[in-house]
Amino acid sequence: MAHEITLPRPAADFHVHVRDGEMMKLVVPTIKQGGVSVAYIMPNLVPPLTTVDAVLAYKSRLEAVDDSITYIMTLYLSPAITPEVIHAARQAGITGVKCYPAGVTTNSEHGVASYAPFYPTFAAMEQEDMVLNLHGECPSSGHVHLLNAEEEFIPTLKDLHSRFPRLRIVLEHCTSAAAVRAVLECGPTVAATITAHHLFLTIDQWAGNSYNFCKPVAKFPSDRDALLEAATSGNPKFFFGSDSAPHPITAKEKAKGASAGVFTQTHAVGYLTEAFDKLGKLDKLVPFVCEYGRDFYKISEKETSWKVVMTKQESIVESQIGEGNSGVVPFKAGEKLSWTTTIVEE
Amino acid sequence: MAHEITLPRPAADFHVHVRDGEMMKLVVPTIKQGGVSVAYIMPNLVPPLTTVDAVLAYKSRLEAVDDSITYIMTLYLSPAITPEVIHAARQAGITGVKCYPAGVTTNSEHGVASYAPFYPTFAAMEQEDMVLNLHGECPSSGHVHLLNAEEEFIPTLKDLHSRFPRLRIVLEHCTSAAAVRAVLECGPTVAATITAHHLFLTIDQWAGNSYNFCKPVAKFPSDRDALLEAATSGNPKFFFGSDSAPHPITAKEKAKGASAGVFTQTHAVGYLTEAFDKLGKLDKLVPFVCEYGRDFYKISEKETSWKVVMTKQESIVESQIGEGNSGVVPFKAGEKLSWTTTIVEE
Repeated sequence: MAHEITLPRPAADFHVHVRDGEMMKLVVPTIKQGGVSVAYIMPNLVPPLTTVDAVLAYKSRLEAVDDSITYIMTLYLSPAITPEVIHAARQAGITGVKCYPAGVTTNSEHGVASYAPFYPTFAAMEQEDMVLNLHGECPSSGHVHLLNAEEEFIPTLKDLHSRFPRLRIVLEHCTSAAAVRAVLECGPTVAATITAHHLFLTIDQWAGNSYNFCKPVAKFPSDRDALLEAATSGNPKFFFGSDSAPHPITAKEKAKGASAGVFTQTHAVGYLTEAFDKLGKLDKLVPFVCEYGRDFYKISEKETSWKVVMTKQESIVESQIGEGNSGVVPFKAGEKLSWTTTIVEE
Repeated sequence: MAHEITLPRPAADFHVHVRDGEMMKLVVPTIKQGGVSVAYIMPNLVPPLTTVDAVLAYKSRLEAVDDSITYIMTLYLSPAITPEVIHAARQAGITGVKCYPAGVTTNSEHGVASYAPFYPTFAAMEQEDMVLNLHGECPSSGHVHLLNAEEEFIPTLKDLHSRFPRLRIVLEHCTSAAAVRAVLECGPTVAATITAHHLFLTIDQWAGNSYNFCKPVAKFPSDRDALLEAATSGNPKFFFGSDSAPHPITAKEKAKGASAGVFTQTHAVGYLTEAFDKLGKLDKLVPFVCEYGRDFYKISEKETSWKVVMTKQESIVESQIGEGNSGVVPFKAGEKLSWTTTIVEE
């Protein structure tokens, strides 16, 4: 049994929310703290990032906080994202476009109601070899509810894949056995990210506990088991994207309309190591957190001057980061992890 | 379309939580306010009511607050409830015994882990024609989770029914299409209560909203539709039990461990009238709220000097009852109901 693991290079997290302003200043430093040097940055700010200039300006603000991280940037799919914008985005070094179905999660009010109008945009992305990041849920309505919202989205995923077979598509934060199967059934241009928290949670843990409540919601034990199996399978279609989402305590400690999102950035690699270790799959950790995502995205990145060392030694997750009610409570706050993350400067 | 309905007699609510002390004083007066004159009182106080004397003393405390209500009393199933206690309970006018599986809901820590040790108790209940009230859920563990906990309980229900075919059993607050089917498959000694809130809610409405969070949790749209169909079917196996549960605001406005329970007492008949009206089934309202439960339980009750009149006229659900953070927020607080409940003294 390994008692110390030095990652060959820091982890890459292919789904990161750091917001803007004060929250950004609080959260960006926790990327490195969690063992991550490559962060794929989500564009769902208020207002959403729908222009190349807005994305580049945001990237500059992130680098002003910590310029040792490689920020991989995305646009927010909206009618503003024409094929011309895609070509310009590629020139400007933007990697992907994130597609939110309207109304399914935090800051998704400007999201997509129908995919067909975006076919020319997707064609341009395919041509430019950009990545389409799908929040894969159908909005609740009629027979669609939070538990089958992802499964109901699968036909859309498969339809887009068959229309644009060379377009690289990532099904973000996949949470169900059905989604895992669907990704396996698609060709090599379709992959999926898996979060840290969905390797632990099921519906029981977010009922009455808004710190564990996120979208897509954690589902059944059989779904969590399918995610654990996919993440530790050594199949490069599945790699790490934390979907770490910082919400202030005031947005969580409320009985009506608690915000959806789990904050995992401070212990990103720590949670994963814990989960992989429990299954006796530590040998699959490095591929999942360091390799498959980088390979799929074909990214170039900054050199890092630090290493991530995981030690089998108890650590306690901090009760919150930041001050008072504008602070953020991490996943498993106050609980023990069996592994400690150490950042070693070279 | 009816614009005014005068109930032939006030409603009977066969599943009521009013707690004790200050909360009891706040909540008991809302029984009448909601249009109810017969309240089947749950025994899950702290500590639970496991002796005849404790139940009778509780009944006296309830009558001291409002003695116009008929309180039908229950014991909390525990090893203390021997066949001798059952015989004494019947003599003392206690009607039922409530069985909580250990750990599934509010104040169920002292509940039942295995049913077999209680067979002699159930046999005595059958002999005394008492009613067994089942919280029909298996505790979450392994493949059992909040969404299938009720369905997983069905074999236990059917086993108890086949062992004690003359024992009257009520599957409390049934929430799933599977439970509705199971109750229909059992003989006439098995019935079920249906709450008001489960006629409205699905999983989406309690995700991130602890005021709509209860046990058993509201499930899928297909389950809610099955409950609506059962409640409005005119089948006497299904009758009203609100499971109205008052939790102080402090127990709901929290991100970790929000209490499970929805408070519906103040508008009990109002919510139901709304739900039945939407389906064009107002003709089935009176049997569901006034007749089938009374018939199943064979209760005797006090004369009432007041009538319940439902008028098709908008009313707004109050934002809370009681003061400050020890107050209680009702179901649909601040929302409009299409019907107004008026209590007319004769």
